[in-house]
Amino acid sequence: MGLDTFDLLIQQAKLPDGSLAQVAVKSGRIHAIAPPDQNLGTAKEKLDIQGNLLCPGLVDGHIHLDKTFWGTSWQSHIPGNTVRQRVEIEKQMLREIKVPVEERASRLTELAIQQGTTLIRTHVDIYPEVGLRNLEGVLTVRDRYRDFVDIQIVAFPQSGLLSCPGTLELLDAALSEGADLIGGLDPAGIDQDVSGHLHEIFRLADKHGVSIDIHLHDPGHLGIYELEQIAQRTIATGMQGRVAVSHAYCLGMVPSDLADVTAEKLANAAIAIMTNAPGHHPFPSIARLRQAGITVFSGSDDVRNAWCPFSNADMLERAMLIAYRSNFLTDADLMTAFDMITIGGATVLGIEKYGLQKGAIADFVVLAAGSIPEAIATRASRKYVIKRGHITAKEDKLLASITCV
Amino acid sequence: MGLDTFDLLIQQAKLPDGSLAQVAVKSGRIHAIAPPDQNLGTAKEKLDIQGNLLCPGLVDGHIHLDKTFWGTSWQSHIPGNTVRQRVEIEKQMLREIKVPVEERASRLTELAIQQGTTLIRTHVDIYPEVGLRNLEGVLTVRDRYRDFVDIQIVAFPQSGLLSCPGTLELLDAALSEGADLIGGLDPAGIDQDVSGHLHEIFRLADKHGVSIDIHLHDPGHLGIYELEQIAQRTIATGMQGRVAVSHAYCLGMVPSDLADVTAEKLANAAIAIMTNAPGHHPFPSIARLRQAGITVFSGSDDVRNAWCPFSNADMLERAMLIAYRSNFLTDADLMTAFDMITIGGATVLGIEKYGLQKGAIADFVVLAAGSIPEAIATRASRKYVIKRGHITAKEDKLLASITCV
Repeated sequence: MGLDTFDLLIQQAKLPDGSLAQVAVKSGRIHAIAPPDQNLGTAKEKLDIQGNLLCPGLVDGHIHLDKTFWGTSWQSHIPGNTVRQRVEIEKQMLREIKVPVEERASRLTELAIQQGTTLIRTHVDIYPEVGLRNLEGVLTVRDRYRDFVDIQIVAFPQSGLLSCPGTLELLDAALSEGADLIGGLDPAGIDQDVSGHLHEIFRLADKHGVSIDIHLHDPGHLGIYELEQIAQRTIATGMQGRVAVSHAYCLGMVPSDLADVTAEKLANAAIAIMTNAPGHHPFPSIARLRQAGITVFSGSDDVRNAWCPFSNADMLERAMLIAYRSNFLTDADLMTAFDMITIGGATVLGIEKYGLQKGAIADFVVLAAGSIPEAIATRASRKYVIKRGHITAKEDKLLASITCV
Repeated sequence: MGLDTFDLLIQQAKLPDGSLAQVAVKSGRIHAIAPPDQNLGTAKEKLDIQGNLLCPGLVDGHIHLDKTFWGTSWQSHIPGNTVRQRVEIEKQMLREIKVPVEERASRLTELAIQQGTTLIRTHVDIYPEVGLRNLEGVLTVRDRYRDFVDIQIVAFPQSGLLSCPGTLELLDAALSEGADLIGGLDPAGIDQDVSGHLHEIFRLADKHGVSIDIHLHDPGHLGIYELEQIAQRTIATGMQGRVAVSHAYCLGMVPSDLADVTAEKLANAAIAIMTNAPGHHPFPSIARLRQAGITVFSGSDDVRNAWCPFSNADMLERAMLIAYRSNFLTDADLMTAFDMITIGGATVLGIEKYGLQKGAIADFVVLAAGSIPEAIATRASRKYVIKRGHITAKEDKLLASITCV
């Protein structure tokens, strides 16, 4: 075998299985994974990670970059009794904050990057009062950080779709101007028209050839009905594998036999489920969804915004919260939480090859831990973050030389 | 007014109300709190905290220093189906770990100190196989760190009291040899004898003149019955204000009107309730307990031990978890969570004077935040930790010069 030349050689890497290895990167992809003593060829750059844990880059599969107050002074939470009220409060708070969406979203993106996130799916609010300004801001951020993180954008009707005149046309425009997916929101609870809401979403998905990610908070049997409708429509339109439902609280609110039957329908339609393991609300049983064959993924969701004053875009902390809420204590269960913030998200985001395998995207986070369960327990320090073979962060901080803002 | 001489002057302190102040400390107590420009006298030492937030030291009101694996390699969780099974698994794991209790408890104590905890109540397992060795280990740690943290010790029958022959006599001995309180555990669920269990606990409390802290995990109506029994016995023995119940899951498992009636009985007996806001279990409504006039406090509980592989003794993170689980979003609600990790715990621990007031114990944590709600949201960096007027930690790290181990 002739010796290669490649871009980066990561040496003394502990792999999640506990073995030591070296990893060669070429053209932004994993070129080889080999035992430490094997001669792989000539590396332009070498990085000795001294036995720290090499993991694939973390995936934040559900965040709202445009909503965050990050980078502003402390904003006290203003409570609202209904989703509608809270949407109006949010609009008002964001109007009064003078820091533009580009800057707030940039700060949050940097925070995510330095904590090891290399892939993001963000929802972006689209409604007549702001038009496409949020989208434009996040597109700017996506471009600004394109060498640090891949950002997928969902055009999200936070104020309703049918119930908020003008939004449908704006979503259509958003998909023409750079949004990657069409979003939805509580077809019953917000739009009061399940068929109408889903019809429009699937129509726009078909028109633009994009995938779908629907926020579903509607409770109990109502939510279950909507999941069934989504599953039927997914199969009818041949969208299997391209539809995700975020939250799906209802699956945690009905008897488990009904949840299981519904999960089977979702699995048949290859619909993925996102849960951030909310603190104060029932949510789907992750173990049962996975047993049904459903891809389950996670995300930070609200980070210092009008909906929640805390959270911090740390996906390792998210894995801890998933474990905390799900009674995940064994190593195997903690690995499930880790799957949700890595391979689960990468699958839903449609990353062609991901993980510690030859040919996969060379996105890594290097953790100061001996194993993945330990890394979740300690929320281990991020020794390095690497995007397509380039070091982007070191010791929990963005590399100053490549900070854009 | 003549000018004083005092030990420490903390300058440029932001108080929780947002005002700037200077705080003078003399003989380990707060001597004066005054506006920044007032001449208070001569300080032996000055500490300019540059507008960072000065808060009273944090109180960890429920931890198990003796159980922790902290300072050992990663210990994979071994599941058990019943409390009895888990107790046996724990005994086995701790037998196999070669790191002695003094060292494990020291590591965890240091972690707590550097995160701003200045007062601790720890439960210590007492059962025939170990005799008083856990107590002796924790007594050593208490002495070793006496200038950094005050540690209150509960003699805790983790393996049962009546159902584990020999334990009663050991608890009696523990109270003679330095334990500060008598503990209890699920009188029904573990000992199968509510009256017998409570009789012995209250008898030992009376004999040794100590307070009581009972672990109560028993569910639903069973737990409610036990709370009623505890309340009755507390009043009958004149122990009002000296009894705490930890967890009391049952209050989160019964209809809220029954929980309210029970809370009233607890309030009449001046019984305090500890909750760590568990992730996967119903727990009492903090707001309702407080409304009933009950002192509610919190603690880390299990930190990297046989019961839970994660947690980290960070009481600011605990406040976040309390908020996360209780849907505490407003500043007022976040202040409630903060009360639980400060004044609530200090009250239960019987600290004579506590908080930012003249005469109070000069225990402080200085947080890199503009307000307490913000500090909880960000889990703000601990700029300084101060115990009885002496700096014990700086920038999230114990001061090397005074590290004992």
